[in-house]
Amino acid sequence: MKIIRFNGGRVGIVRDGRVFDVTDAAGVDPQAWPPAGICRVIRDFEALRPAIAQRMAAGPSVPLDSVRLETPVPWPNKLMAYPVNYHDHAKEMASRGLANVQGYFLKSNSSLSGPADPIELPALPGREIHHECEIALVIGKGGRQIPTERALEHVFGYACLLDMTVRGKEERVFRKSYDSFTPVGPWIVTADEVPDPADIGMKLWVNDELRQQANTRDLIVNIPQMVSIASSASTLYPGDLIATGTPAGVGPVRDGDVVTIEVEHVGRMSIPVVQGKLGANVVFEKPYEFVRAG
Amino acid sequence: MKIIRFNGGRVGIVRDGRVFDVTDAAGVDPQAWPPAGICRVIRDFEALRPAIAQRMAAGPSVPLDSVRLETPVPWPNKLMAYPVNYHDHAKEMASRGLANVQGYFLKSNSSLSGPADPIELPALPGREIHHECEIALVIGKGGRQIPTERALEHVFGYACLLDMTVRGKEERVFRKSYDSFTPVGPWIVTADEVPDPADIGMKLWVNDELRQQANTRDLIVNIPQMVSIASSASTLYPGDLIATGTPAGVGPVRDGDVVTIEVEHVGRMSIPVVQGKLGANVVFEKPYEFVRAG
Repeated sequence: MKIIRFNGGRVGIVRDGRVFDVTDAAGVDPQAWPPAGICRVIRDFEALRPAIAQRMAAGPSVPLDSVRLETPVPWPNKLMAYPVNYHDHAKEMASRGLANVQGYFLKSNSSLSGPADPIELPALPGREIHHECEIALVIGKGGRQIPTERALEHVFGYACLLDMTVRGKEERVFRKSYDSFTPVGPWIVTADEVPDPADIGMKLWVNDELRQQANTRDLIVNIPQMVSIASSASTLYPGDLIATGTPAGVGPVRDGDVVTIEVEHVGRMSIPVVQGKLGANVVFEKPYEFVRAG
Repeated sequence: MKIIRFNGGRVGIVRDGRVFDVTDAAGVDPQAWPPAGICRVIRDFEALRPAIAQRMAAGPSVPLDSVRLETPVPWPNKLMAYPVNYHDHAKEMASRGLANVQGYFLKSNSSLSGPADPIELPALPGREIHHECEIALVIGKGGRQIPTERALEHVFGYACLLDMTVRGKEERVFRKSYDSFTPVGPWIVTADEVPDPADIGMKLWVNDELRQQANTRDLIVNIPQMVSIASSASTLYPGDLIATGTPAGVGPVRDGDVVTIEVEHVGRMSIPVVQGKLGANVVFEKPYEFVRAG
């Protein structure tokens, strides 16, 4: 099942290119603030399935391209990310800080954006802003100290995720937490539609050029391990997001580019890049030259 | 005004050692999940003041020590923190990664705990877990690219905050995001009760021994600058928390210790430390020796 947020906090299911509005069946108030209701829908999804199915059987639908898609989980408990989780990316960054010796870092919830939102480059002269192609895990059942052999029971679904990054020597979290730096979408596909989490392909293009390509079989810390490690430290909650890491091929994007990400069994989305006027601060005053290793 | 959460998500005001339950006046449903409603109360606080005042004038109150205090904002949009923000702490850590060249990092929302919750040490043999004494800022009015001269208008209030930390070389976020690693409380004191944000003293004791002592006048990045820098990258939302950094004197805590923090104009809280059984993972397998610098 493909679950979307759209048109100002409404909840929908996408089937055969059409959107079924299940906002009422899911018990979500689109006006509620903070917009955290989708976490409850994820928590209660099995119990909500009959009402959602009934609504889909009974009701009208609209074409997918007639709605404005929004980021699926705008206000999770936490947006975790694993650093340097593919060996080829470790090599290009000359990094020894692999995911298995680092643990997770966090990105700001406010960096989350949706399939219809452009990536807005901050006004940081002399800085490169890079695309990183990733798969997002969406946690369904929460928990603490989850063993790897039970970890997949806690994965509700998957989505495409771009981890946009200002290159530099400053705190990684800060460089990655600009508004619009975490496009997620186009929907959450539930885990039952992904036959093998250890065999999910992904690709990223900038304009027409293929820049990144990988498969989850090449992860250093695999998906069950990511869930297990994160939950050893932190109670996981329904709606928590985990960005699983990017492979080799990261590089700069510029005003006017279009970044396209495709994740096998999930979907694809294309995000325009625009130059913004905001974002300057004392931290980024010094320029930084990104040098690709070996 | 001193605002608390207590007894399972209820909202109260503390005056003269007594608690006025304003849950209904604030429009909060204590059963709602996720527990993000307090963010809306903070956003709308000026508009809610008359109803809260009416409730306090009319209603009964109970002694403060008869309620169980909870962390004031359990599910903010983000829990930011500034690294190495006092020169004396930079010296003891031999760190050049000062806040003014780093920007903020994040701690997990799930690490937030309250004045009545013990700090639970994870089961990480060979690792020290340190106390860091800090002041929390609570954002009231949200915004982006807030200039320093307007920044204090966005500060709703202040609280005591402990930034508990596993020492080591792993990702800072992961070392600081264990459950119960961010006690906040005992309440939010609104900004009008703090005469000068550039002159707030704080102290921390482990058992009866004074370990840390500082004043916000010695911050490297001061309070208006912290708000401004954070908002240059990330839209701030009502309820966002900023941990403002710790001074010299960090050190290990052990099972049975009691950590007491006091922040001038805010209040004080004492948190017991207990040894937990959870928390092991492959990331922390290697021991690490903390060596205090110079």
